[in-house]
Amino acid sequence: MQIRDVPTRSFRSIFKWGAPDVFYDVDDRLRGFIRDTLQLPEERFSELFHPGLEQVPDLPAPDLPEDTLARLEAMVGAENVATDGYTRAEHCCGSAYLDLLRLRLGKVEGAPDAVVYPRTEDEVSAVVALCHDRTIALVPTGARSSVTRGLELPRGGISLDLSRHLNRVLELNETSHTARVQPGMGGPAYEQWLNARGYTCGHFPQSFEFSSVGGWVAARGAGQQSTHYGKIEDMVLGLRCATPRGMLATAPFPRAALGPDFTQMVVGSEGTLGVITEATLKVWPHRPKSVLPMTFMFRSFEDGVTTIRTLLQAGIGRPGVCRLSDPEETQAALTLDGFAGGSVDRTLQRIGYRPGSRSLMIAATEGDLAMATATAARAHAIAIKQGGLPLGPKPLRAWWKRRFHDPYLRDDLMDYGVMTDTLETAMTWSDLPQVWRGVREVIKSRPNTACLTHISHAYETGANLYFIVISAMDREHPTRDYREFHGRIVDAVVQHGGSLSHHHGVGRLFAPWYPQQVGEVAFEAYRGLKSALDPHGIMNPGAYGLGTG
Amino acid sequence: MQIRDVPTRSFRSIFKWGAPDVFYDVDDRLRGFIRDTLQLPEERFSELFHPGLEQVPDLPAPDLPEDTLARLEAMVGAENVATDGYTRAEHCCGSAYLDLLRLRLGKVEGAPDAVVYPRTEDEVSAVVALCHDRTIALVPTGARSSVTRGLELPRGGISLDLSRHLNRVLELNETSHTARVQPGMGGPAYEQWLNARGYTCGHFPQSFEFSSVGGWVAARGAGQQSTHYGKIEDMVLGLRCATPRGMLATAPFPRAALGPDFTQMVVGSEGTLGVITEATLKVWPHRPKSVLPMTFMFRSFEDGVTTIRTLLQAGIGRPGVCRLSDPEETQAALTLDGFAGGSVDRTLQRIGYRPGSRSLMIAATEGDLAMATATAARAHAIAIKQGGLPLGPKPLRAWWKRRFHDPYLRDDLMDYGVMTDTLETAMTWSDLPQVWRGVREVIKSRPNTACLTHISHAYETGANLYFIVISAMDREHPTRDYREFHGRIVDAVVQHGGSLSHHHGVGRLFAPWYPQQVGEVAFEAYRGLKSALDPHGIMNPGAYGLGTG
Repeated sequence: MQIRDVPTRSFRSIFKWGAPDVFYDVDDRLRGFIRDTLQLPEERFSELFHPGLEQVPDLPAPDLPEDTLARLEAMVGAENVATDGYTRAEHCCGSAYLDLLRLRLGKVEGAPDAVVYPRTEDEVSAVVALCHDRTIALVPTGARSSVTRGLELPRGGISLDLSRHLNRVLELNETSHTARVQPGMGGPAYEQWLNARGYTCGHFPQSFEFSSVGGWVAARGAGQQSTHYGKIEDMVLGLRCATPRGMLATAPFPRAALGPDFTQMVVGSEGTLGVITEATLKVWPHRPKSVLPMTFMFRSFEDGVTTIRTLLQAGIGRPGVCRLSDPEETQAALTLDGFAGGSVDRTLQRIGYRPGSRSLMIAATEGDLAMATATAARAHAIAIKQGGLPLGPKPLRAWWKRRFHDPYLRDDLMDYGVMTDTLETAMTWSDLPQVWRGVREVIKSRPNTACLTHISHAYETGANLYFIVISAMDREHPTRDYREFHGRIVDAVVQHGGSLSHHHGVGRLFAPWYPQQVGEVAFEAYRGLKSALDPHGIMNPGAYGLGTG
Repeated sequence: MQIRDVPTRSFRSIFKWGAPDVFYDVDDRLRGFIRDTLQLPEERFSELFHPGLEQVPDLPAPDLPEDTLARLEAMVGAENVATDGYTRAEHCCGSAYLDLLRLRLGKVEGAPDAVVYPRTEDEVSAVVALCHDRTIALVPTGARSSVTRGLELPRGGISLDLSRHLNRVLELNETSHTARVQPGMGGPAYEQWLNARGYTCGHFPQSFEFSSVGGWVAARGAGQQSTHYGKIEDMVLGLRCATPRGMLATAPFPRAALGPDFTQMVVGSEGTLGVITEATLKVWPHRPKSVLPMTFMFRSFEDGVTTIRTLLQAGIGRPGVCRLSDPEETQAALTLDGFAGGSVDRTLQRIGYRPGSRSLMIAATEGDLAMATATAARAHAIAIKQGGLPLGPKPLRAWWKRRFHDPYLRDDLMDYGVMTDTLETAMTWSDLPQVWRGVREVIKSRPNTACLTHISHAYETGANLYFIVISAMDREHPTRDYREFHGRIVDAVVQHGGSLSHHHGVGRLFAPWYPQQVGEVAFEAYRGLKSALDPHGIMNPGAYGLGTG
């Protein structure tokens, strides 16, 4: 059973991923995979777990200092200040597993007292100044797809929603290949705007359809083609950030020697220092026809890792998509697309590409066509040398088609009482094997749990690992169960030398590990920065463990 | 006349560039060029301007809190604490024009009370802690080739010289292509160490022979092949920095989403936050045989700029060396190598490559041979389309041979009463023409002054401009004259949209412009960082205009 009718103003209408009327099928294969892997009884597929169809109740009246609402309305227009319960509930969280769980359980926690939609940068500055004067907590929001609990206001305050008005490209500089973009602009709108002029933004996270430029920058995000285009921090040349101390504006120099990099202080700060009002981003010529698929099966994960590492270190151009599934994810993928167990599979197995060790690489070069062709040819030779078996373009094309779909299915799986979560980390090539083994070990120590892992972003010196965890919920104590399990996984990531995140960010979810990860002195530096720019501690209090919130 | 005997313990022995016994000839062409351009009377070449041959006199006794010297000697060994006047004078400055001028005039200003040579990272930490406790100013030094007055101690303090002991590679990770290096290691030693193992550091600033890894990182430097390998900030994956608050250590993740980038806070901080004790840098396979020269003459500077911009934005690989001389520098180069006015030159001029507008591009692709070959072929086509005339490999080879020599000649030119200074800046491609014109206008407003300008570091979104200024000194008031002229040039850089520096740094020389360039809020952020890590303000006080020193 899949829910296809989402009542308006229901909890589900808040947590449902994506457009209200877009759904994807949980087909028999996926259902079978879940049932078999998780040892889930068949009735779980009809007894839905808190589907959240009930109406969101009213919230207590906003608790703000006297005349604050009037001042806000005077600043941005009454139509741009919302205090109704539903709008505030919508802004109480992002899309972390815990967020979805809480909403399913009918809990609205961390909601703002008011949602404000500024129309201009000056209005952003005015709201920040007012909140600074009155010590009101403030969280900038855009598409609200944070998966790190980056948007909550546990003690109330204001959610500054930038998506309604601050959602335009201000300037395209075709000489310098840069665009000045407002933070509330959504990914697809930005990309379409650029495509119409012959350019691409190069940044396509899985959340692309429901992500915004400001979120990309604030969370230090990465797109699925980042191996070619770089992460967002490689694309941001300059930005403007309205801090309680005033506007921090960095010039879009291609490089400079001007002391500490203030742009890279704001990138990833997740609203703790101020509100990003503009970013100057690199853009590239849009050449969709020169995406050249390149997929291989390897006999082992190690062979695939060596291939990607060698490719990146060879200095022969970088593919855009560059993914390597570990044996468990490879087997799941082959099962889900109906390949596993067929006659071709049996041939594969006979020549040494066996379930439990074989690993699938899905990649594509892109950019300048001649260059993409040359890179693909060289990559081909490297893969063959590592025992890679070329599989043709199909696997890449199939992946490409559904590359933004997984978050939709997550809602359906949660209906069935299935916990699905993702954790991602980065490390040097030499640390990668131990992180992969160590984290997998913890995840697989939970009975009947799938751990599908891939590399999806590669560099000369290292890569990321992206773990997808699928397990049956503890229906009685789903929150406690998740927290305990999640905590043990994060412990393992840190212990084995991985970063707390490669591109999701830290928010409140990873804040308990943050000081240890970066060290007390770096954390002190962050506090010093924060005190200088936000002396009253109003900006996203609680994120990164800074302040109380 | 050229001085070839440098008395030991003389002022000249301090300011002379490079190895004590290495000199290069000021040949007749250079002498003629200087004489004609600057309208310098012939006798200037024999009446030397304060050649600094006299002995450095003793300095006043060190002025440090009681028993500090004893404590320092106990920490690092008595042989690693120097208080003699000559050693202290050696450490009073770097190689900025003003530094050389002061030493020629017999002034030792800003010298430390003691020079300390720590043997281990722990000793660095101990010295930092002692200075913090006793509020003693501390400046880390290495090869002392700063050209921004980054090393002075106007109120005394300690110069922590890292070059004697902390000068080794700690680890080469051949899986991750990274090296852990100590800050006092000199460029050539580091490169030779890597070459012997099949790798290259990719970082070759003009000061390479007399620069250190710590200085590269602390000043946010760039090498002459940075278009291929990146600036130092692109190579530093992690570092360790002994701050008064303790060790700030960043992990060498290839990328991460962990909030503000603490590595990029320390890079470029020029000792204002702490002492860098280690950096983890990217390394590359060493492939000297695949350096493929690529030189062209263009009819105009604009044609050359368009060529480099198009090449960088095409996504077809990046050359290492990538230089474009403006018309004045082009003409100077052709004059100095005897080409100008010859029969080939006359042919060139007949087909439109005329003095006053023609511009010389000297470049070379490198790295993987097939890739370098492909990039060179594509670059060739781009250049031809812009009217570029291929000149064969000679100009690149000639430049390569003398690429570290200019600083040597600076000493000889100063002997002749010639002011030679360099200013460099970065900007977007769209701002480049106005910066070039605006800065040149100010420089050329000084009578009989050469302004030789080139692009030497190029990016997709912009490039640098490097201005070489050659003019006759005001022999009566050389310091005042320089300061006034330099100030007007920097004003023009800022006014037209250039950065204060692309790779030299800020130090004390550019500090007066710094708050305006980055904005008051960013400067406040820097102050906040500094307060958090260096609450007593002991680290390089005065650099960046932070603190008094």
